[in-house]
Amino acid sequence: MKAQIHVTLKREVLDPQGDAVRRALGTLGLGEVKDVRVGKLIEIELATDDRAEAEAQLTRMCEKLLANPVMEDFRVELP
Amino acid sequence: MKAQIHVTLKREVLDPQGDAVRRALGTLGLGEVKDVRVGKLIEIELATDDRAEAEAQLTRMCEKLLANPVMEDFRVELP
Repeated sequence: MKAQIHVTLKREVLDPQGDAVRRALGTLGLGEVKDVRVGKLIEIELATDDRAEAEAQLTRMCEKLLANPVMEDFRVELP
Repeated sequence: MKAQIHVTLKREVLDPQGDAVRRALGTLGLGEVKDVRVGKLIEIELATDDRAEAEAQLTRMCEKLLANPVMEDFRVELP
């Protein structure tokens, strides 16, 4: 089963990479942008085909390895 | 208008970061994983509220700055 995990910085955490992208977009004249945030998109192919088990595994992976709970939020997306 | 951009490595491009994550998940005993790919998730808040204009702007941003067309694919998601 293939799943996607979205890892994003919490709203209250500064995002220098996002700011740099926002400024670069302005400098290049590529459109008026109010805000940019850069996160991670992790695509995982699991051995299991059981949806509930997959969701439990993915949540544990995020909590233990993929996301930093102090600074980041995560969202698990199953097909 | 808020939009999401998914930037992922093309299938034929090696992903050492994804491989490292896959091995780490195995080492930590967090579930059986066949494949992991790590990409970028870019959240952009545009000044425009016109859907067609937003899509055109975002596609141009990806082509010119956000994605490397040699190695990466991108997908624009509007609400």
